[in-house]
This record gives sequence, structure tokens and C-alpha cells, in this order.
Amino acid sequence: MNKTFEKLQPYLDKAMAFQTARNLFEWDDQTQAPFEAADYTSKVVGILADEYMKCLVNDDVKKLVKKLQEPKEQEELTQKEKAIIKELSKTLKELESIPPQEYKEFNELTSISNRAWAKAKKDNNYEYYAPYLKKIIEYKKKFAGYRAEKNQDSYEVLLRDYEECFGIKDLDLFFEKIKIEIVPLLKQVSKKADTIDKSYNYLKYDIEKQKEFCRYLSGYIGFDYNKGVIAESAHPFTLNLHNHDVRITNHYLENNLESAMFSIIHEGGHALYEMNIDDSLTQTLVGTGASMGMHESQSRFYENIIGRSEAFWAPIYNKLVDTYPENLKNISLEHFIKGINKAEPSLIRTEADELSYPLHIIIRYEIEKMIFSGEADVEKLPQLWNKKYEEYLGISPQNDAEGILQDTHWSFGEFGYFPSYAIGSAVASQLYAKILDLMPFEDYLREGNLTPIREFLRDNIHKYGATKNTNQILKDVTGEEFNPDYYIDYLKNKYEKLYEL
Amino acid sequence: MNKTFEKLQPYLDKAMAFQTARNLFEWDDQTQAPFEAADYTSKVVGILADEYMKCLVNDDVKKLVKKLQEPKEQEELTQKEKAIIKELSKTLKELESIPPQEYKEFNELTSISNRAWAKAKKDNNYEYYAPYLKKIIEYKKKFAGYRAEKNQDSYEVLLRDYEECFGIKDLDLFFEKIKIEIVPLLKQVSKKADTIDKSYNYLKYDIEKQKEFCRYLSGYIGFDYNKGVIAESAHPFTLNLHNHDVRITNHYLENNLESAMFSIIHEGGHALYEMNIDDSLTQTLVGTGASMGMHESQSRFYENIIGRSEAFWAPIYNKLVDTYPENLKNISLEHFIKGINKAEPSLIRTEADELSYPLHIIIRYEIEKMIFSGEADVEKLPQLWNKKYEEYLGISPQNDAEGILQDTHWSFGEFGYFPSYAIGSAVASQLYAKILDLMPFEDYLREGNLTPIREFLRDNIHKYGATKNTNQILKDVTGEEFNPDYYIDYLKNKYEKLYEL
Repeated sequence: MNKTFEKLQPYLDKAMAFQTARNLFEWDDQTQAPFEAADYTSKVVGILADEYMKCLVNDDVKKLVKKLQEPKEQEELTQKEKAIIKELSKTLKELESIPPQEYKEFNELTSISNRAWAKAKKDNNYEYYAPYLKKIIEYKKKFAGYRAEKNQDSYEVLLRDYEECFGIKDLDLFFEKIKIEIVPLLKQVSKKADTIDKSYNYLKYDIEKQKEFCRYLSGYIGFDYNKGVIAESAHPFTLNLHNHDVRITNHYLENNLESAMFSIIHEGGHALYEMNIDDSLTQTLVGTGASMGMHESQSRFYENIIGRSEAFWAPIYNKLVDTYPENLKNISLEHFIKGINKAEPSLIRTEADELSYPLHIIIRYEIEKMIFSGEADVEKLPQLWNKKYEEYLGISPQNDAEGILQDTHWSFGEFGYFPSYAIGSAVASQLYAKILDLMPFEDYLREGNLTPIREFLRDNIHKYGATKNTNQILKDVTGEEFNPDYYIDYLKNKYEKLYEL
Repeated sequence: MNKTFEKLQPYLDKAMAFQTARNLFEWDDQTQAPFEAADYTSKVVGILADEYMKCLVNDDVKKLVKKLQEPKEQEELTQKEKAIIKELSKTLKELESIPPQEYKEFNELTSISNRAWAKAKKDNNYEYYAPYLKKIIEYKKKFAGYRAEKNQDSYEVLLRDYEECFGIKDLDLFFEKIKIEIVPLLKQVSKKADTIDKSYNYLKYDIEKQKEFCRYLSGYIGFDYNKGVIAESAHPFTLNLHNHDVRITNHYLENNLESAMFSIIHEGGHALYEMNIDDSLTQTLVGTGASMGMHESQSRFYENIIGRSEAFWAPIYNKLVDTYPENLKNISLEHFIKGINKAEPSLIRTEADELSYPLHIIIRYEIEKMIFSGEADVEKLPQLWNKKYEEYLGISPQNDAEGILQDTHWSFGEFGYFPSYAIGSAVASQLYAKILDLMPFEDYLREGNLTPIREFLRDNIHKYGATKNTNQILKDVTGEEFNPDYYIDYLKNKYEKLYEL
């Protein structure tokens, strides 16, 4: 090993340990910590965060990183080490840019403002939340400003934090295409809503049986219980301590069969990504998914492209019917497949179907852009939100709780994050087009043999962790960088066929 | 606040944060971490342990502690701060005494030797484990030697780590009394074993219903679900992150009704102790139970003195019968009370009844003493063990798995720990005698009103955390220091009555 890198290793190891501990506290908080623990436990988490920062942002580490970026040292580094230095230098730049006092104030603010958001959502009272949101935005503008290059928009800085390959220009182009093609398509589909009945989905489904079936589904797609666990939380999520300890959660609704099943396939897709990262990268800065967009591409690939296909359900639909004969005995596989793919404009992003989903993202993207360019005042956001829902989805929220207040992201200061969800869907479609060229995809699904698909994703995407970025992965797998046309084509083909347009 | 103490505070906070994180990893490992996680996660835990050590054992802290022990500084400290300094100085002395390299080697050894023990127990192969045990004992002797005062026995040093008030002389006296009184009593009781039938206990008891009933029981004795959670693990245990986050586990056996019920009351007793520590002590070095013996006194008070009494079950036994009518409809309350108190010599400590329990402890205590005085070779331990079981309990293990290999403690280097269990039982009896003088204990139980009992324990014991030691607590509550006679009297009265001797 390079001597300079060797000197850096203990700092990296310490940062990894503190970060892993923070992750475990996060997991614990979401899944099982008692209600009253939070106030005291937050002190522990605060100290761990502080120690994490101190062990990376210090003169020793800065000197070592600077030295390791010199051409002579770079020559001696492996690909993995180079990727780690690149990632570390990015992290350092971000951590260093914010004066510690402001960083602390901001963390205190988001911890209060997240509670304010929850209260406002519960009480349907946007006015209560607005002053917090305003302050968060001020901090985010300031923080982005510290790192912005000359003439760079602050929103652009935030976007690149989640996806280094995508800026405002790329997303404008991407979303413009979607608007042109998908808004009219959704209107056509909406007119034929009555042709698909999914009333069966809202009957009563025993929760213990749902848990058991979801456990079966996760195993079926390849979730490895030696390297992972499933728990329950208010909102399903995936969290990894490292690639041998990947955790997903689910939630179960008695009157909604789909919800838990597709959540577990979605989170399972995230989990497979993390579980299949190469062991040589475990517990390093690049031992995790390449980006949020790339991560969503895997979860949405499993959830939608695999999980909502007829071929996937063909070998296992009987098992589902046998689990709930009272509800499903008269629902044919064909009927069920139509049901799980039914598209209808609705107000809540997390419950949206595959077709209308990107429109929810576009609304948030356009509003975020306006916030950071100064075109949208915090006070006016509810009206702006409602207007855009009317414009793109043809429906209007009855209140702010199902409108502007529905997502938790902004209350944590997460601006620029939403596009990842749409990027993920588009990346999934682009990968899918290539996979169809390379293997008898549908035949594998019909045979209940998901191994070749899982191995393809592992060998071409997962194992690299964050040593490649989204465009490098796409280029290597599909021969071209990000191309949103595949997504448009995929949605059009699928929904024109489903609704016989 | 005293200026010097103020300078110490950040070190204490950091140590608390690292220790809390280690506790959470321990909890997670025992309750839900996936199998393959261990090898990687142990690296995280190792780093946290190292950081914990470094933030306490350093010149700054040493100087501050030394200064804070000066009379002038002591005058300015509160009782709580004095207790913290005393505890810290003890911890420092212990951490400092061992050369870091040896400490590391020992930790590596115990992590391997615990696995070796598990394998040896599974395979009933003591020879496989013996070399590891030998090395552990060598380290423990050496480590105790570093701290031993002139002419002090190394086993005495280890004992005082768990109970500063109890040395070899005290325990010899205590255990001698037990042997004289209890060994013959148990023999008498054994002859009348047939007079109590508890075959009902080994019927089939649905595990989901057990869980529900145990949840009810824990709430009934006062476990606060806003400050605690219950999970499952191989062996029940209690762990606290702080007094607003106290966790207990249970395990459920389909063919043993008692096991889970009395485990949950036992762990519930530990949990009540931690939950009721005063908030002014939260997250400090004295914000936990006074000692292991004091802790066991609370768990065993709840499990045995409360939980195995007729008055406790009188108001709730019907609920248990209603939960399992098929098994219990013909078992009267009187029958059930006899069943849960049935005493019989058996080989496994953790499953022992209240009467024979201390004899299991005496066997371990006498063997540990012989190990550290050089009287017992590791190779000869199985024979020694079997001989003592024959002598005190009148029965002999069929194999080493149920003999010398049954407990995990030694594989972690925990020598001197076992007496805490017996001390706890004796302390519980001493407290019980006082409580009977002070309140209509049995009436409260019969009314299902456990609040006055819980509040008495909280106000006289729990709230002080570790600011008092075992003898101080006993003196303040009962007017005298540890007195084993109460325990002997309690056991004799109870069992003579139960078996009509």
C-alpha cells in the first residue's frame, strides 16, 4: 500500500466507525427506540456527529489528501484508493465549507423543524411550519453559496450533492420530455380508469399473513437473511451498516394488499444493491451505492419492471391466492396484473402509480428551482403547489396536509433530492432495454429463476459500489450515458398496451 | 459548577457517547443483527472501545481527576459530582493498570474463547475449551496482580470489581451459613418432591399468547413502555442506554409456561431500577444501578418475593387461566402457587428454583477461589465441579455440557461475578423484612396495587443510581449493613411452610 494512504487509513476507519454507529442509532430510532429516549439519545448522536467531523476535518487529513492528489502519489494508488480519495475530498470540501457554529445551528434547526413539520401536517397548518421552512431555505442558500463556483446557481450545487452527473440543464431537458409525452398520456389513461377494477385490493388482509408473504417475496427476489433483517417502521426504508448488514423495513395496512408487497420488493431492490457490493470495498467511503439516483434505479427496477410484470407473478400468483382465498379466488392473474398497474392521477407521491409518479417529481423540482432563484416566496408555496397539481395531474389537494406538507424532505433541509427518484426510474428503463437485448428476461421470470438477472446487476452495477458514478455505470453497461428516451418509450409502450390506446 | 469539573465534563460526555454506542451494538447483536454482520461490525465496536479508552486514559483527565480529589476542590463539589469522581478514579485505575497491548490481546482472546466455549458446550468437549480457559485465567491473574494491594489475593480484587462491599471474608461467612442451613433443608424438601405436581407447566403453551401475557405482566409490575422496549434473544437480559431507554429481552419455550413469565418479571425488576434513577444522574457515570448485587436484589425481589407469592397472583391468576383454559382450567391458584415454588435439586443454575439457587453459586464461588489460589488446575475442573454438585445438591452432571460448561461467564473473563446473584437474593430478603414493617405489602399485592411498593423502592434505592454503594443503601433503608440472616430466615420460613416440614 502507498505510504501516504496508509497514514490516512486510521482516520478513515474512525470516521467509518462513528458513521456506522450513527446509522445504527438512526435505525434504532425508526424501528424500536422508546418514545422518551429521543431527547437524551440525541446528545449521544450529536457527540458522534461531532467526532465524525473532527476526525475528518483536521490539518493532518487535509495534508494527506492534498498530497494523495499529486500525480506522483496518484500513480501509486489502486482504482479503489483513487475513488476513496475523490470521495473524501468531496466530503471534506462539503464539511469544511460550513463554519462549525452555523453547522450546529442548522442541525438544531432541522431537529426542531422536522417536529414542526410533523405537527403542521397533523394539524393541517402550513402557517405554523412556514417560518421554520423559511429559515431552513436561508441556511441552505448560504451553505450552497459557500461552495458555489463562479456564476453557479445554488440549487445546482444542491442537485450535484445527490447526483454529480445531473445539473439543472440536464433535468430541465429530461423533465420537459416527460411533460410533453406523459401529461397527455395520463389524461388519456384517466378517461379509461373504469376499465380496470382494483376494488379487491382494499378488502381486509390479515397482517400476520401479509408479513409472512412479504418475507417470502423478499427471499424470492434474493434478499439474503444472513446479511440482512426486516423490521417495521412508519415509512419503509433501507439502511446499511455495511454490505453484510443491510436492513429494510416495511409497514402493513390491513385494507391495502399492494402497499406492503411492493414496498418490500422496492426496499429489497435497494438491499440487493448494498448486499452485492464487493467485499474489497466494505466499510470504505465507496462501499455503498453510487448515488441516490442509481439506488432508486435498482429499487424501482425490482418494484416496477420486475415486480409489476405478468411474468414475475405467473409462477407465484397461486401462492398469493392461497394465502387469501376469500378475497382473491375470483381474481384472475390477468385481473391482478391490471390492478397492480392501474394508473390514476392522485395527490400523494409515495402512493402514486408508475405513470403519474414522475409528474409528482416535476412539481417538486420546479418549485425547488423557483425557491432558490427567489421566484417563489415561502408564503405562496401552497398556492403554487396546488396550481401545479391542477396543471400536471388535473387534480387539486383539498388541504395542505395532502398538498405542500406531504413530504418530510424539506424539513431536514433536503432540497435537490426529489429528482433522484425520477432519475432512478429512467435509469431503470435504460438498463432494462439493454437487459432485454442480452438475456431471455421474461423467460427467466416465468421460470421463477431470478438468479441470472440478479447476477447481471451484481456484476455490472452493484459490485462497484461508489467507485463509478451514474453515467460511468450506464456507459459501461448500455454503451451510452443517461438517455431519458428509454423511460418515455417504456411508459408509453406499457400504458398504451395496458389501456388499449 | 466547579471550574475543574467543568473542564472534565466534555471528556465524560464523550466517554458516555462511546459507551452508549457500544451498548446499542451489544443490544443489536443479541437481538437482531444478521449472522454475517459480526466479523465486520466487530471492527466498529473495537474502534469505539479504543476511543472510549483514549478519551478517559489521558494526561488531561488524569490531572483533572487528581486535582478534583484535593480537599479544597472536593469541598466545592456536590454529592453527585463527588460520586462521579470516585467512580471515574476507579475506572481510570482499572483501565490504566493494564498495558494497552495486553488489553488488546485479552479482548482478542475472549472474543475467540467465547466461540470456543460455545462450540465446546455444543459438542460436549471440555478439552477443546480448556486451553482457552487456561489463558484467560492467566491474563486475569496478571491483570488483578497489577491492581492488588500488598498481600491482597487476586480473586479478592476481582470480587471487589463487582461488589466493592464484599470480599472473600464476607462471602465465606455468608456462604458458610447458607451451606449449614440450606443443604439439609433442600435434602428434606427433595424427599417430599412428589407432594407438588407441576406437570401442567410442561404442556403446550402457544408462544404468541405467551408474548401477550408477558407484555401484560411487565406492564402490571410497572414497566413503562415510553421508556423501554421488549425484544427477543437467546438468553433474557436487560440493557440500558440511559434511564429513558431501558431494554429487556425474553425467550419463549412452547413447553414451559413459567420460563418466559418469570424471566419477564425478573428482567422487569432490573428495568424498573434503571427507569427510576433520578434524571439528574442520567448519562453520567453514576446514572446506573449501584452494583450487580444491588441490581440482582431488585430483579430477584420482583421475580421471587413478589412474583412467586400467592398475593401477587390472586388478582390476576384468572387472566392466566383464561389465556390457556385448555391447560389450566383444573389447576387451582393454590396448586399453581405450589408449582411455581417447587424446589428440586437440578443441574442448571439458570433454571434453578429459589431454594437451591444459592448452592449453584457456592459451587462456582468455591471453584473460582481455588482457581485463583492455584489449588485447582484447569484440567481437573470438570471432576471438581461434579464432586461439588454431588456434595451440595446430591446430583451429578451426565456430561460437561450440563456441568462445567454450562455458563458463559468465564469465557469472557468474568470471574468473581457469580456471587452477585446470591448477594442479590440476600439483599432482597433483607429489604423485604423491612418493607413488611413499613407497609401492608400483601394487601397491596392482593389489591393489584403495586404502586406503593414500586415507589418505595424508587425513593429509597433506585433514584440514587450509583451514588451510594450496597451497604450504604442497606444501612439507610434497613438500619443495618448486609446481614445474610434475613435470607436464611426467609428461605427456611417459606419452604418449611410450603412443604409442611
